[in-house]
Amino acid sequence: MINIYFAAKPASWAEYETPLRTALDEIGVAYTLSASCDVPEKIDYLIYAPGGPVSDFTPYTNAKAVLCLWAGVESIVENVTLKIPLTRMVDHGLTQGMIEWVTGHVLRHHLGMDQHILGQDGKWRLGAPPLATDRTVSILGLGALGTACAQTLAALNFKVQGWSRSKKQIDGVACFHGEAGLAQILSNTEIAVLLLPLTEATENLINATRLAQMPRGAVIINPGRGPLIDDATLLAALDRGQISHATLDVFRTEPLPADDPYWAHPQVTVTPHIASETRPITAARVIAENVQRDVMGEPLLHVVDRALGY
Amino acid sequence: MINIYFAAKPASWAEYETPLRTALDEIGVAYTLSASCDVPEKIDYLIYAPGGPVSDFTPYTNAKAVLCLWAGVESIVENVTLKIPLTRMVDHGLTQGMIEWVTGHVLRHHLGMDQHILGQDGKWRLGAPPLATDRTVSILGLGALGTACAQTLAALNFKVQGWSRSKKQIDGVACFHGEAGLAQILSNTEIAVLLLPLTEATENLINATRLAQMPRGAVIINPGRGPLIDDATLLAALDRGQISHATLDVFRTEPLPADDPYWAHPQVTVTPHIASETRPITAARVIAENVQRDVMGEPLLHVVDRALGY
Repeated sequence: MINIYFAAKPASWAEYETPLRTALDEIGVAYTLSASCDVPEKIDYLIYAPGGPVSDFTPYTNAKAVLCLWAGVESIVENVTLKIPLTRMVDHGLTQGMIEWVTGHVLRHHLGMDQHILGQDGKWRLGAPPLATDRTVSILGLGALGTACAQTLAALNFKVQGWSRSKKQIDGVACFHGEAGLAQILSNTEIAVLLLPLTEATENLINATRLAQMPRGAVIINPGRGPLIDDATLLAALDRGQISHATLDVFRTEPLPADDPYWAHPQVTVTPHIASETRPITAARVIAENVQRDVMGEPLLHVVDRALGY
Repeated sequence: MINIYFAAKPASWAEYETPLRTALDEIGVAYTLSASCDVPEKIDYLIYAPGGPVSDFTPYTNAKAVLCLWAGVESIVENVTLKIPLTRMVDHGLTQGMIEWVTGHVLRHHLGMDQHILGQDGKWRLGAPPLATDRTVSILGLGALGTACAQTLAALNFKVQGWSRSKKQIDGVACFHGEAGLAQILSNTEIAVLLLPLTEATENLINATRLAQMPRGAVIINPGRGPLIDDATLLAALDRGQISHATLDVFRTEPLPADDPYWAHPQVTVTPHIASETRPITAARVIAENVQRDVMGEPLLHVVDRALGY
């Protein structure tokens, strides 16, 4: 029997208990799992996240490892009471989640779904959209996430363009780079997806000049970073129809304040930073796999190098 | 010289004449093409669509085949005056359009988009959906359209199940068949996509029994044929939450009357039969190819099995 202590925020317990039990049941090890702990020396593994009840690991004298639910471990990596291995979350679900969110919202705008979702008024609105082969989607930012999204959209037959700071080459994607490349790619973009990292060079990249370079009625989708967009100019462009819709998942301030003009704008959809999130189901499997490995005497995965800090 | 009679709705003639002449010119056969017909016995091929001028095929004594512009042939398949081969439309553009509509609406429900599209009220609604790998989508009907949609969803990592009357095998898709297979597939279906042909065996297939076999909260997406669903029982299942949402593109009566309860139901989205519209350019090429094949003595493509009904 191994005893596992869920030492994250109590609010996470509701979200994680069932996925963890499901994943632990599957590995076939007898266990207890609890979000409270009366006898620290009986605990074999701690599941940890910042903001939880444990900051002193000294009483957990028999614990074999601390399994962190987060990818970032800066809140615990320098904790001097932690003498046992610490693992971090490496969730392959993050890329997959982004692909699904981006593909879904590109298809939503491509198909003009909103007119039907919002227009259930008895009016039969004829008119099919063009095929994806006649729709140009541009991915700004060709890192791991941007490249994966570009390839998925290309496989669905969209005309996909990509833009990055330095030159890239991706099968099935027309790649542009640099300042001249940006003006060129924006000029025929029907749907733009922002997946750039946030740097000094990309902050407010989507400003008045860039918005004016796009064809009238273009759509902006931002699952990247909030400050990539100059918010005031985007709102102005939405007001005059230069941009027909913006679907935004990330913001300068999160949660987005209730009085932010994005909420009230009829041409804006706010989603709550969900495009790419650690999911309890996949995270629980990563935790369970590490418990299983340790019980079987195999090396733990994703062990943090305490000297490097990650 | 072969004589071709365009026997669809007169309104379609404006849309189809040029694409048909272009496609027929390309096959290099001498022909006449007209939307009217004075001497039925001179006609070699009829291009047919529901709602057109021909319901009695007896006078067309020299006709070699009826080439249907639609994928669904239920309006003609039992016509006893039709003794010559009937072909149905298998249009690449139609398949591509269906793939896009089905993939888009599956992702819409998978991602829970509606709560954000309809809920722009300043409330930051946390909670990411599961990944596609943890979402079971079932395609009922594994013809050309169903198979193409199943493969596309499988490529996006959904857990895809398929059901058909007779046994089929598709890579990456768990295939079921027959009555027992239907109960089995429905029991764990989160999102069901109906792409069955309309026959006596499939009419009202989605009835009280089948809806009760699905897990509570399942979603129905119907881009197939309206009468596949027993409307009254679907509305009742929506009222009590057994089915959480229905997105319907096809109906017993089209356009759907403004006072139909589907319009008013908050858990229903009506789209105006746009999931798969035959696009004249690609459809004309399919028709011309069959004319060419028949003239050259080659077997027709996409011939309807009159006994099966599709």
